Formats: sequence, structure tokens, C-alpha cells
Amino acid sequence: MNGAQSLVATLVDQGVDICFANPGTSEMHFLSALENPRMRSVLCLFEGVATGAADGWYRMKDTPASTLLHLGPGLANGLANIHNAKRASSGMVNIIGEHSSSHLKYDPPLSSDIEGLARPLSHWVRRAESADTIAWDAAKAVAKASEHPGQIATLILPGDTSWQEAGAPVLPPAAKPARKVPDAARIEHIARVLRSGEPTLIILANKATRGAALERAGRVAAATGARLGSQFFTARIERGAGRVPIERIPYAVAPAREFLKDFKHIVTVETKEPVAFFSYPDKPSLLKPEGTLVHPLVEADEDSALAFAMLLDALGATHTAPRLQPRIETPVPTGALNPVSIAHALAAALPEDCIVVDESLTTGRESMGLTIGAAPHDLINNMGGSIGYATPVATGAALACPDRRVFCMVGDGSAMYTIQSLWTQAREGLNITTIIFANNSYAILKAEYANMGAGTPGERALSMIDLDRPRIDWQAMATSMGVPSVAVDTAQAFHQAMVDSTREAGPRLIVVRL
Amino acid sequence: MNGAQSLVATLVDQGVDICFANPGTSEMHFLSALENPRMRSVLCLFEGVATGAADGWYRMKDTPASTLLHLGPGLANGLANIHNAKRASSGMVNIIGEHSSSHLKYDPPLSSDIEGLARPLSHWVRRAESADTIAWDAAKAVAKASEHPGQIATLILPGDTSWQEAGAPVLPPAAKPARKVPDAARIEHIARVLRSGEPTLIILANKATRGAALERAGRVAAATGARLGSQFFTARIERGAGRVPIERIPYAVAPAREFLKDFKHIVTVETKEPVAFFSYPDKPSLLKPEGTLVHPLVEADEDSALAFAMLLDALGATHTAPRLQPRIETPVPTGALNPVSIAHALAAALPEDCIVVDESLTTGRESMGLTIGAAPHDLINNMGGSIGYATPVATGAALACPDRRVFCMVGDGSAMYTIQSLWTQAREGLNITTIIFANNSYAILKAEYANMGAGTPGERALSMIDLDRPRIDWQAMATSMGVPSVAVDTAQAFHQAMVDSTREAGPRLIVVRL
Repeated sequence: MNGAQSLVATLVDQGVDICFANPGTSEMHFLSALENPRMRSVLCLFEGVATGAADGWYRMKDTPASTLLHLGPGLANGLANIHNAKRASSGMVNIIGEHSSSHLKYDPPLSSDIEGLARPLSHWVRRAESADTIAWDAAKAVAKASEHPGQIATLILPGDTSWQEAGAPVLPPAAKPARKVPDAARIEHIARVLRSGEPTLIILANKATRGAALERAGRVAAATGARLGSQFFTARIERGAGRVPIERIPYAVAPAREFLKDFKHIVTVETKEPVAFFSYPDKPSLLKPEGTLVHPLVEADEDSALAFAMLLDALGATHTAPRLQPRIETPVPTGALNPVSIAHALAAALPEDCIVVDESLTTGRESMGLTIGAAPHDLINNMGGSIGYATPVATGAALACPDRRVFCMVGDGSAMYTIQSLWTQAREGLNITTIIFANNSYAILKAEYANMGAGTPGERALSMIDLDRPRIDWQAMATSMGVPSVAVDTAQAFHQAMVDSTREAGPRLIVVRL
Repeated sequence: MNGAQSLVATLVDQGVDICFANPGTSEMHFLSALENPRMRSVLCLFEGVATGAADGWYRMKDTPASTLLHLGPGLANGLANIHNAKRASSGMVNIIGEHSSSHLKYDPPLSSDIEGLARPLSHWVRRAESADTIAWDAAKAVAKASEHPGQIATLILPGDTSWQEAGAPVLPPAAKPARKVPDAARIEHIARVLRSGEPTLIILANKATRGAALERAGRVAAATGARLGSQFFTARIERGAGRVPIERIPYAVAPAREFLKDFKHIVTVETKEPVAFFSYPDKPSLLKPEGTLVHPLVEADEDSALAFAMLLDALGATHTAPRLQPRIETPVPTGALNPVSIAHALAAALPEDCIVVDESLTTGRESMGLTIGAAPHDLINNMGGSIGYATPVATGAALACPDRRVFCMVGDGSAMYTIQSLWTQAREGLNITTIIFANNSYAILKAEYANMGAGTPGERALSMIDLDRPRIDWQAMATSMGVPSVAVDTAQAFHQAMVDSTREAGPRLIVVRL
């Protein structure tokens, strides 16, 4: 067994059984080790697809995937989606190929400071110095990535570590990842706040927006009258009919402040108090009203489900039924495409248990509220704000949940960053409906230009915002990578295209012409 | 004048009059400042296109371009081509948008350690702390980028620095970039080596592969019998009929060692002794024979043209005529496409004064030698080895030289990394003929798998190397971004397609079906 084989065997032994790979020469022994039938390897034609797919996998599985990237520049190409994954608390194990140590001293063309590139966006970075210790390193990487919240672990793999004889794997003692127990005094304090009857918003994030934690939060809300909210972006929300509904704090500063203005208390769960996404001249960074108190209930590394159980106990509300979202039957809309008709089409079309990955920015921003009573589904958002996250995350989510259809809503500007995802979706036959909202511009920037107080964009500024010269032919783009497509101009046709896309396995692309 | 306006005005005052931009919300004031008619702004739909285009601009102009990138992740997406530019000694000024300082302390989603991400691949990093000093910072960045060799300068631009009042620009004293004068004793030493008559290879790089330096190197070769060589990859070579010919050291270790085996001396000019691109088990990193002496003639920051003038003086050979490459008329090839017929088609088709950007890897590797007697042209190679460099570099080169056609030869695997370049080429109407060598695989990795001693790839390893499931439809890809295309199956059709592409302005794409 060589080092690469020891590495791959250790990854699968530790539960990491998928690798999103974009290999190069220095990773040939790793490629050979991928013959291990317990590891599924998925080829990505750009590294940002690989790291985004690993994020999508984690969002649905709560266990890390691995990536294989080619030296410093390969890692660099994956960093933007590593940033997004880090902000989403997604764990992942990145394996970065590297020159063998004896070769590095000659500073060959592809060498760079891989640790330097990895550190700003990794929680854990290690260079695997020898084949006989790589199993230990790999197990440590998986343990780190599997912590709560999920962590970015980056393991640098020199060529000689890959190809040298490894011997029998030596592993560190197994460590079961645990979520910390919240402090009892803090629970008591929150119970007092909630019993005060003063207007309170409980902001849920990360693991608290689904499963037992969400259900218990719903009981707390029902028992106390507190409202449940989320940041504008959340890693994954279980929502729709039959789920505990969560209100979304708006994106823009003015409506967010309006939304928050009457709360006396903000209780945070695996998140912090809401802040503006960007800074603007003469606008505040913090969104809460002056005088509103912020109380942390659950810190990022603590157990929300347990915290809410303790809180229900303290409130004597263990048997209170949670408020649940009723089903809202939305008629199939007709007529022109606009944010409302798009939302209605979505609400009518989304099948039970589907996954929605949202990077629709301007088009989706106003309309998510209108799908709250749709069939139950999971919603995934971009937590890091680096665009080009949706098509890779959808790719990983579809691999994680092969029996569920993924709807990937993405603006045309955003889709261009990591469009290579479509090829992997076609190759793997993934059940993904990609919806391109084609407004032929970075529409969000038109609004932000004014928000920034930069006035009305002149001709030259506009030319940096408009994507209409030439217009991207999205159907040709889909064809180029083997994904069938349809273009729609009406709300009804949009609905029909979504329904049609669920009738056959494999990827589909819908161009929504705006 | 606000900070952004002061920045843009300073850039153009200092000679940086083009900006390859992929903006976001935090750069709206910069966008507004781009209304300055002296700055040309070019929109790129992915940051790797912007940084690669800046590299291409520098290769042809020897002056830096600027890029505009959106916070840490935007920089990250541009890093792979910054790595390639750094290895090519291309100067560039990267402007990285950032949150305003008052906003950063809240750790909003898009914040990251921008300095940390920039440093591994920048020579100079600075955060512009205030609007009234940004002109100074910008002038320093341009001065740094303009040094010889070219440097990567990265200037971080917080939002408040952009929008605050700047006052009149205050600039540092102008510094004319100078190339250092080589040491006279070293010149004498090299003259002695050359007079020895022992077999000597002079390896030229960077600024020494063109202009007066190359012409003088040709005189030295004619006077002494020394041979002129280049590394396998060179930033830019003036070659073809009427130019001083340079022999190319092969890529693979065995033929490179065979090529070098009889040289007693290697003289290096703006480069180092040849090393293998990758490390392989049981193969050496250094390519020269044991006992061969390496003598630096020109260090990276010195003046090659001056060094060769001094050397000619020392050799008493100032009036020796250089050896020049005669024109070789290549008949239009017919029949099947293979590396030789492709090379012949190129040799026959390349018009005088065109620019060839080569990232053809396997297809082009054997054939460049056969174009040595073609019409005079410039050849640009990938110096850093991070693939996805060619289509962006071609974009920048075409903007730098609007009267010359650029032939961008790129493998299908490589083209997928930064394929968004095609859109910018269509938008700007650039005279670029993109040639996609479609062998539907990472063909280079098939050879490297064996070179690595990993044996014959099994089914799973092969599935990480083959791109044929699905095959990329390159004509649809070109159509999607507004570039006209043609596909060819024979050498004659390939030649004809290249000739046809020169008949009208604007981009063309040729799919070479292998």
C-alpha cells in the first residue's frame, strides 16, 4: 500500500466516501488509489465546482466530502466556494497535490506557498510529510471537518508522500464529534426574557433551522409569543407545509430595520445579531433598533436541539404544540414573468421533499415569502456572498440525495462563474433543474449603485453592469455540456417547464427570459 | 473628487489606462469613477479572465494593466492567473474592493483576510486607508508593477476610502523603472567560457527572447558557435522567418536530458537552469548532465540587451551578423489531423505579425518546431503551469494589439477553466482565433500516469481523465457567448478555417476534432 492508497482507504474508513476531483500530474497516484471501489470520485472541470459540490454534499448529509485539487493554483480556483462553505459551517476535507519535497527547492513553475493560500480560509492546514503517517493526518482531517460547526480541513499531499510505501495505517483514537451543552444559567436568562412578554425575535441558524431543534423552537414560539426569524441567508432551512415557519429578515438595510424596529429582544441561535451585508455611506452596519438587547441562546458550537429542550423545560412548555405552516395551494399563474408570478409558479410546482438552492438574487429576493406554504422542501442559501455557489452546491446536494429533485435558481450573472457544473450534472445524470433568470444584467448592482449614493450610472458604468452585449444564449450553453433545456416567456410556461423537468431523471435547464 | 476618482485619475496619469473588471457592490464608486474617459474598462464575467487578460496585456505592451476584483473571494478567483502572470514576470495592478473599515469589525459574510490571500502571489500588498492618500498608494502600486521584472501589486480599496473626499492627489516622486547593469567581471567570465569552444547553450528568457537582446544574442551565437535555447515555456518569443531562432528544451524529462547531454556549459539569461516541471519517482529534478557548469549571464532584474552588447564588445564581435531563421514555405497539408499536419497547417496559415498564445499541451507539444520558419510572429506560453491561462491572455493581448490577429491554441480540458473569456472577446470584437483541440480528454494526464509509474489507469482512474461523457459541444459553447465557429476534421479544412478567420474582424472559434 502506498501513501495515496493509505490516504484513500483512511478517508473511506472514516466515512468520507466521495471525492470531487480536478486532478493534475502530481496527483496520479491518488487517481490510481481511487480504484478503491468504496470511494466515489466525481470529475469536475473547474475547481470551484469541486469545492462548491463538497459544500452541497455537507449541507444535505452533515458529513464532509473530500476534494482533490492540483497544487496552489488549483486550490486558489476552489477558494471562493471554500469561503462560502466556511461561512455555511460546512465541513470538507481538501486534498491538495504538491511537488515532492526534494523537487520543491528548485522552485519549479507550479510551486507556490500552498499553506499561505490555504490558511485564510481553512480551520486546519497540514502537510503530509510521509507515507507512513498520512493515515493519521487523514483521520485528523476528517475529525476536524466533522466537528460542529463543520470545519475546513486542508491536507497538502506531496508527490513522494503519495508514492512511497505506507505500511499499515496508524490512526489516532476515534473522537466522536460532539455538540457542546449550553450553559444552564443562560437558558434560565432566556426563559426570563421570553416570559417578560416583551416583543422578542429568536433568530435561528445552521442546525437550528431543521429537525428537532426547529420543531422545539416552534413550541417555544407557540408558548411565549416570540417570533422566529432567520438571517437573510441560511445554510439550510426545512420549510413549507407542515414545518415550523421562520420569517426572513430582509436583505436591504431599510426594510431590514423596518422588520426589526419593534423588537425589544433578539435571541440568537448558532448565529450573531443581524448586520448589513455591505457597508453604505450614511447607513448603519447594525440592523437592530437602538436599545434592543441581544441575548445569545446557543453559540455556534453548541447543541440547539438540546438547548430548546432545556428552554421548553424551563418554560414548562414541553407539551405545547408547535405552530406549523399550513399548506397553501397556489393556483398555476398565468401571464407575464415577474417576481410574484415566478414565486407563484414555484409554489405550485415544487414537489414534496425537493431541494431548492437559491442564488437568484434580484429575482428571488422578493418572492421567497410566497413559497412558505408550498409542499415541504429544503432551502439552501449562499452564506458567504461569493457568487457562483449555486450550480456547484446543487451538484453536491443532488449526489447526496439522489432520490430528491434539486431546483437550482440562479441569476445569469451568477451562473457564469461556475457554469462548468452543468457538465458534471450531465455526466452523473443528476436530478437537477437549473433555472436561469436571464435578465441580461448584474441587476443587483443597478440597485446597489443607487444605494451606494453613486447616483445614476453613466454609460461607462452601465456597460460594467449590463450583460446584454452579447446576450448569453443559455440553451446553447446547456447543449454544449449535454443538458437538455427549454426557454420560457410566461409564468404558465415556467410552471409547466418545472413540472416537466421532474418527469424524467437527469438534469434540465430552464431559461426564464426576463 | 472622491477616493475612487482620485484612484482612477492617478492610474491613468501613471500610464495604466485599462481595467479588466468584475465588480460588486463595494466597488460602485469605482465604477462611477470609470466614467473617466481616459480609462478603458473591460467587463469580464469571471475574475480569472480579468487577471489573465492583464497578463496578456503586459506581455504585449510591457506596461501593467489594472484589474478590479470583488473582495477576498473575487481575488481568489483571479489568483491562478495571477500565479501564471507572476511566473511570466508580468506586472499588474490589482484593485480589490473591500468593506469599509467601520463595517469590517462585524465580520459580515463576504469578509475575509484579503492581505492573507494576496500575499502568497503578490510582490506588493497595501490597504488604501484613506481617500486623501490613495493617489500616493496607486502611484506606488504602478511603480512597483512597472519594475523589471514586472511585479504583482495588489491594492485593497475599502468602501469608505472610495467614497470619501480625496482632495488634490499627492504623488510620490516619479521613479523611472530601470533595468540593472550586469556586472562587468561576469561578462568577462562568460566571454572566456564562450571562447573556450566547449559546447555551450545560452538559455534566453523574459525580455531576452525579443528585440535588441535577441538580435545581439544571435550575434554572440554566430561569433562563438554557442547554441541559443529557451525553457519549454517562455513569456514571449519573437520567432519565425527573419528572427534569430531559439531551440526549445523539451518538456518531458528524458528528451530534455537527451537535448542537454552534450553541453559542457549552460549560460542563463533572465532565468535559471532547467528543472523538470514535475517530480517523478526515480527521475531527477535537474535536467543538465552531471559535470555541466551553469553560469548566470543576466539576472532577472538586469538588462539583457545591454549585457549582450557588453558581451559582444568583450568578444570583439560587435559587427558579426546574427544567424537568422530563413523563411520555410510550408505547403498546405492534406489528410488526417495529427500533431505534424496541425503544425504544417499552422505554419502555412499564420499571417505576418500575428500573435500565438499556446496552451495546446499534448497537441502542440511536438509541433512548435515545425513553425519556426513561418511568417514572423510572437509566441506566448504559460509560465506558471496553472491551466486556463490561454483564452484570458489572448483577450488581453488582442486588446493590447488591436491590429494583429491572435491565434489562441488551447486544449479542450484547459479551455473549460476560463471559457467565459469568449464572451468578453465577442463584446469587445477582438481579433482572436480560438483553436480548440478537442481530444475529449486530459490527454496529458494519460502520459503522465505512466510517467509517474502509476501503471496503466484502471476504469475509475480513466474516468477522471476522459472528458468524453458527455462530449463538449464546442460550437454550441461558442454560440452561447456570441462567437462564430467552425469545426474541422482534416488538416486542409483546419488551414482553411484559420485563413478564413483572418478575413473579418472579430473573434472566431475553430474546433479541431481529434
